[in-house]
Amino acid sequence: MHRFPDYLLKGHANFMAGRYTREKDRYRDLASIGQSPQTMIIACCDSRAAPEMIFDSTPGELFVLRNVANLVPTYQPDGGQHGTSAGIEFAVKALGIANIVVMGHGRCGGIKAALSPDSSPLDSGDFIGKWMKMLGGLPEQIGHNELMTPGERQTALERISIRNSIANLRTFPYVADLEAEGKLAVHGAWFDISTGELWIMDSETGDFLRPDL
Amino acid sequence: MHRFPDYLLKGHANFMAGRYTREKDRYRDLASIGQSPQTMIIACCDSRAAPEMIFDSTPGELFVLRNVANLVPTYQPDGGQHGTSAGIEFAVKALGIANIVVMGHGRCGGIKAALSPDSSPLDSGDFIGKWMKMLGGLPEQIGHNELMTPGERQTALERISIRNSIANLRTFPYVADLEAEGKLAVHGAWFDISTGELWIMDSETGDFLRPDL
Amino acid sequence: MHRFPDYLLKGHANFMAGRYTREKDRYRDLASIGQSPQTMIIACCDSRAAPEMIFDSTPGELFVLRNVANLVPTYQPDGGQHGTSAGIEFAVKALGIANIVVMGHGRCGGIKAALSPDSSPLDSGDFIGKWMKMLGGLPEQIGHNELMTPGERQTALERISIRNSIANLRTFPYVADLEAEGKLAVHGAWFDISTGELWIMDSETGDFLRPDL
Amino acid sequence: MHRFPDYLLKGHANFMAGRYTREKDRYRDLASIGQSPQTMIIACCDSRAAPEMIFDSTPGELFVLRNVANLVPTYQPDGGQHGTSAGIEFAVKALGIANIVVMGHGRCGGIKAALSPDSSPLDSGDFIGKWMKMLGGLPEQIGHNELMTPGERQTALERISIRNSIANLRTFPYVADLEAEGKLAVHGAWFDISTGELWIMDSETGDFLRPDL
Repeated sequence: MHRFPDYLLKGHANFMAGRYTREKDRYRDLASIGQSPQTMIIACCDSRAAPEMIFDSTPGELFVLRNVANLVPTYQPDGGQHGTSAGIEFAVKALGIANIVVMGHGRCGGIKAALSPDSSPLDSGDFIGKWMKMLGGLPEQIGHNELMTPGERQTALERISIRNSIANLRTFPYVADLEAEGKLAVHGAWFDISTGELWIMDSETGDFLRPDL
Repeated sequence: MHRFPDYLLKGHANFMAGRYTREKDRYRDLASIGQSPQTMIIACCDSRAAPEMIFDSTPGELFVLRNVANLVPTYQPDGGQHGTSAGIEFAVKALGIANIVVMGHGRCGGIKAALSPDSSPLDSGDFIGKWMKMLGGLPEQIGHNELMTPGERQTALERISIRNSIANLRTFPYVADLEAEGKLAVHGAWFDISTGELWIMDSETGDFLRPDL
Repeated sequence: MHRFPDYLLKGHANFMAGRYTREKDRYRDLASIGQSPQTMIIACCDSRAAPEMIFDSTPGELFVLRNVANLVPTYQPDGGQHGTSAGIEFAVKALGIANIVVMGHGRCGGIKAALSPDSSPLDSGDFIGKWMKMLGGLPEQIGHNELMTPGERQTALERISIRNSIANLRTFPYVADLEAEGKLAVHGAWFDISTGELWIMDSETGDFLRPDL
Repeated sequence: MHRFPDYLLKGHANFMAGRYTREKDRYRDLASIGQSPQTMIIACCDSRAAPEMIFDSTPGELFVLRNVANLVPTYQPDGGQHGTSAGIEFAVKALGIANIVVMGHGRCGGIKAALSPDSSPLDSGDFIGKWMKMLGGLPEQIGHNELMTPGERQTALERISIRNSIANLRTFPYVADLEAEGKLAVHGAWFDISTGELWIMDSETGDFLRPDL
């Protein structure tokens, strides 16, 4: 028998006294009417990159899927249990969201493991190793570029991976169709933990740029 | 060419002017030293149940994996790409977290789809249908109990599913081992969107109870 | 020869010095004019769930029938001595009450005996066993659901039993008629001994919800 | 769809803010440890004669069965559904209570209906008529005594009925046995709504006397 972590209970008491008290009506409505978020965020599990913090969002605003390194697989209707694909399907087909944002971030542990599988505390044969295989040969192609610093290679792969996930997203027929009809927009973003800045992917060029705030 | 959603840019500007300005040092440290969260939360993608809001948490505190209906599969080292398992492995083996919380919530769309696959906008043959198959026969066993109201069956399955995920978590050898050594604790919780309350699973009985706040 | 319990005599002296002194005029009027309660409560004998405490009520307000597990039988005008039916008849036809509340509660000993007749200190062939047979096959239908904890099964049956009693109430022709005419309303409620909270049955869905206090 | 009576919701809010707040620990203990009342009260449904008010009692103190006119049948193990007998059995065998008090009161509507069945709004063939038949020929024997006033006949039958119920109580084998062993005491009491006074039955003579308060 063990107790629930005390600091989480205190955090929840703060929530009740703070945000919940202020937004009680909104929570009640969200419960009775249901959610209708406009945007799905596909983000990383990293504790430093919570989308609701980064976008200062209110309850009901963001449908958020988080996996290691914010990866999106290709469309594989093979009967397997694809959690990320299930989330995308639910967001697009059941909720009718208008935007999908693939949001990566700096100093991502999953990307780092993909770049340097040998120095990772994880075996490449483990789940992480197999999960990061979703990137195919991308880590090797950038990892062997000795002209870039390790930090540059890491940032480069973080951004390459976002573009790769967006390409994979478009292999989902309903994503491609709705995007073609102008009913769904797909975006990329990259969060800099150190500076707090969000870099937005230019949908034409694929470049990541800081917006004018 | 399409623009990044304006309300997200505004939200991020609020983040920069608010939380980031207040916690700048913390973000810098988290970037340079790395994350060391004590707790992993396995939560749902639902836009109304963001763990960071519910626990009023600060950056770096929670490693958060979110999939549809906060499901955990059994340990299946079969070479497949198991995103949830990869997240658990990363949290336990790379980050050495001390707590895993499986957090469900009321009015969960995934659980609802599992209980009434026919009235769902999603085909049961789609990703969601296959994903919710992780619950095996549990939905049928509770869904056919006509003595309970639809709302009661939904709440019951949400909680049964949390206990099922916790049982599945313990099929991961390192989870079971660390738990036996007292180095890792596994918890269940259920969030009531309407009232804002968190119900904590009693680790002995499996019952969900509200803590004294 | 034995004495009346001393603590009851002291309690009554407190009543005389307290409530009776404050409400003397009300008691006199209630004696001379007669009672005219608006509400009948059908409650359990349990010492922890007295309706007058739970509703902080004044003398003359509640007509209260209490039996084990607050059960209501179906309308059986067979010449037998039906105490609960006599109370309902008196409340509706002689007093013209406007509301009937069937109020159950958590940790009910009668419901527990119905769920686990073998571990009860009472033989199922005794009065309690026969009395709880009024629930028919309901205990078996919920009691065999191993997916739920014993506590969850108990709460579920407590609430199912309230809905069952309300359905039985409506087999009384005058209850059904007056309800159809809008002159009598039938309600369900469930009292949580531990938290003191009252959960009210939604008359449409049958769900139990806490009211906004 | 109809609302729960507003005055009951307000009453419960008063309970939460008042008694529950003061006795929270007691309620928690009563919930977790279970009830262990020393006394069972068999009382009338009358809204003016709530035992918890009359004895100024605290939660957990009194196990209270209430039917019309506080009647106790004889021991009839015939397989019928005897609610009052089930309550007595539960109190004596499952809870091991030490006292049973049969408490009548003045101006009892059930006793009045038994004395003047023709002027009652209820047919004698209805449930109340059959229920009051438990008194056998007692109402006729006192009702035809023209030397007493109607008020005297009513009070007399109220007290005769209490003694009759006590005699019936002693037909339950376990009541008789435990009483013989000195482990259970059976008492009579009569509450005067107008004056608030409790008249205690002398266990030797059967007379009702006011105790020295």
